[in-house]
Amino acid sequence: MEGRITVAVDANGADLGPAEVAAGAAIAARRGTRVLLFGPAEEIGAVPDGVEVVDAPVSIAKSADAAMAARRTPEASIVQAARAVASGDADALVSGGSTGTALAAGLFNIRRATGVHRPALAMPMPIPGAPSLLLDVGANAEVRAENLVQFAFMGAAFSRVVLGIECPRVALLSNGTERSKGTPLILEAHEDLIARTAGATDLEFIGNIEGTDVTSGTADVVVMDGFTGNVTLKVIEGSFANALQAIREVAESSPRSRAGGWLLRPGLRGLREQLDPETFGGAYMLGLRRLGVVTHGRFTRRGFARAIEVAERGVREDVIARTHAALEAAGALRSPPSGDASSVAGP
Amino acid sequence: MEGRITVAVDANGADLGPAEVAAGAAIAARRGTRVLLFGPAEEIGAVPDGVEVVDAPVSIAKSADAAMAARRTPEASIVQAARAVASGDADALVSGGSTGTALAAGLFNIRRATGVHRPALAMPMPIPGAPSLLLDVGANAEVRAENLVQFAFMGAAFSRVVLGIECPRVALLSNGTERSKGTPLILEAHEDLIARTAGATDLEFIGNIEGTDVTSGTADVVVMDGFTGNVTLKVIEGSFANALQAIREVAESSPRSRAGGWLLRPGLRGLREQLDPETFGGAYMLGLRRLGVVTHGRFTRRGFARAIEVAERGVREDVIARTHAALEAAGALRSPPSGDASSVAGP
Repeated sequence: MEGRITVAVDANGADLGPAEVAAGAAIAARRGTRVLLFGPAEEIGAVPDGVEVVDAPVSIAKSADAAMAARRTPEASIVQAARAVASGDADALVSGGSTGTALAAGLFNIRRATGVHRPALAMPMPIPGAPSLLLDVGANAEVRAENLVQFAFMGAAFSRVVLGIECPRVALLSNGTERSKGTPLILEAHEDLIARTAGATDLEFIGNIEGTDVTSGTADVVVMDGFTGNVTLKVIEGSFANALQAIREVAESSPRSRAGGWLLRPGLRGLREQLDPETFGGAYMLGLRRLGVVTHGRFTRRGFARAIEVAERGVREDVIARTHAALEAAGALRSPPSGDASSVAGP
Repeated sequence: MEGRITVAVDANGADLGPAEVAAGAAIAARRGTRVLLFGPAEEIGAVPDGVEVVDAPVSIAKSADAAMAARRTPEASIVQAARAVASGDADALVSGGSTGTALAAGLFNIRRATGVHRPALAMPMPIPGAPSLLLDVGANAEVRAENLVQFAFMGAAFSRVVLGIECPRVALLSNGTERSKGTPLILEAHEDLIARTAGATDLEFIGNIEGTDVTSGTADVVVMDGFTGNVTLKVIEGSFANALQAIREVAESSPRSRAGGWLLRPGLRGLREQLDPETFGGAYMLGLRRLGVVTHGRFTRRGFARAIEVAERGVREDVIARTHAALEAAGALRSPPSGDASSVAGP
C-alpha cells in the first residue's frame, strides 16, 4: 500500500487517560501517519498537528458486557473508531482500552474476513534471544479445533509478512510434547495440522511444545486458546518482572553485590527495554477485514505511538490480505457462509 | 505420626537412571528414613544402608497409555511401589518416573480418599519473595467446577499443615480479576467458592488472579485445571531460565559488565539455588488415601533425597488426614459413593 496511511485510535480506556493517548498520536503523526483520534475533546485538549480529533466522550472501556455495550452504544469512541475503519475513512484500528470492547467493536463493525471462524489476538513476545508470536492471547476464552488450526495459519502468515521469518516453525502449546498429549481439543487440532501442513514449504508444523519452550525459541509461532494464551502471556510478564526484582535485591544485598549491580546497570537497562511490552506496541487483531492493534491499558505515549506505528506498518505490508491468502492456500477457510451476517466478503 | 517412616520409591523412569535414584535414597536413609526401592536390582548395584531394594525391572514410565499400563502391568516397579503403600508396608510413595503412570498407579492401588472426586498435583513454587502453592499442575487435563472447589480446599489445608500459613489466601487463576471473567468453568467454581468460604477463618478466598500475579505473592494457593497448571508451571520455569540466561549474556557483553557479573556471582548463586526445582522435591499428590510425591524426571540424587524427605515430613505432619478433615469441614466432599470401586473409605 502506498501513500499516507490513516489510523483510527480510541483515546478512551487507557489508564493514563486520553491526553496520554493523544500525546502518543502526536508522536506518530510527526512520523508521517495520519491519526483520527476518537475521544473526549475536552480531555484531549490542544490538537496536535497531523491528528484529527473526533469528539466522542462516551467510553465503554469498562463495560462488564463488552459485546452488549459495543452493539448498543454506537456513540462510544471505540465503536466510532471501528466504524471509521469499516467505512474506509481509516486503514487500521488502535485501541487503548479494553481488549473485550475493541474486539466486539471490531467484530460488529469491521467484521470477520470471509471464511474466518474467529479473529485472534497475536502477540509478538519480547523474549530475549527467543522472540516468538503467541496467539490467541485473549480473543477467545473457548475455542474449537478448527479455530486453533486457523490461528496456526494466520500466525504463520503474520510471522512471514511482518516478522520476516520465511518458514516459521509453528507449534501447539500442550502439557507434553508427544502427539498423544493434550486435551481432546489439542489432539484434534494436532492431527488436522499434520494433515494440512504435509508438504507445506512456507511453514513447518513442529507439533506440541511445553510451557518451558515458549521462552526457549523452539517455535516462531505458538498456538493456543485465548484463556491459556492470556495466562501464558501474563505469567511470562510476571516471571520476568519477578526475576528482575530478585536480581535487583541480590544487587543490594552486600557492598560487593552493590558494586556489581552498579557495573551491570547499563547492560541491564538494555535488557529491561527489550522486555518492555511497549516496545512491541501491543497485540494484533487478526481475522477481521482490516487490521486492529490492541494495546495494554497501562501504556504510556511511547507505547501508543509504537502501536500506531505497527498498525501503519501492517497496513503498508498488506498483512490482512496476505494472511487471508495464506489461509486460503492452506484450505483452512471455512466453506462459504450461508446467511451469516457477521462474516461478509472483503471489498 | 511417630517412629520411623517408610517411603516406597520407584527407581525406574528417572532421566539419570535407577542408580541415581538409589543414590538419593541412600542420602535419605542416612537421615533416618527407611526406603523401599523398587527397580532393576542389577542397575541399582550395591544396596545402600537403610535401603531395601525390591527387584522390579519392569518399567512403564514411558507408556503412551499410563492408565492401561498401570492396570495391566502388576509387576511394574511403580505399581509394586504403590501397592506397598496401599498395604501399609510403606507410608508414602515417591515416583521418579512419569507423572501419568505414578498417578494411575496411585489411583488404582492407593485409591482416592472418600468423597474426593479427583486427586490433584500440588506444587510449592520456588518463586523468589513470593512462594505459593499451585494446583492442579498436571493430574487432570480437564476438570469440572467441583474439582476446582476441592482443589481449593485441599491446597489451603496443605498450605496450613505443611507450609505453615495460618489463613492462606486462595485464588482462581483466570484471564481477568473480575468475578465475571473466565470460562464457564471458572465462573461456576468462583461462585461456589464464594458460597462455601463465606465466614471461613482458616482460609480466605480472594477471587480471580491473572497470570502476572502467580509470581507476585498475591495468593498463597492458586487453583487451576491440570492443563493450565502444567503450562503455568513450565512457563514460569522457562521464563526464569531465560531471564537468568539473558542476564548471563549481559554479564559477558563488555569488560565493565564482566566485572559486574563477577562481583554479583555469589549472590546470584543463592538465587539460582532458590529457583532450583530440586529444592522443593517435587509435586504432592493430594486426594489419595496416602501421600505421594512426584519428582521431575531430570532430578539428580539431591532432588530424589529431597522428595523422600518431603514425603516423610508429609507423613509425620499427617497431611492426608488433615487435608481430608478440612475438606469435610468445608462440606466440599461429595456424597457417599454408591458402588464406585475406585473410591473407598479410609482405614
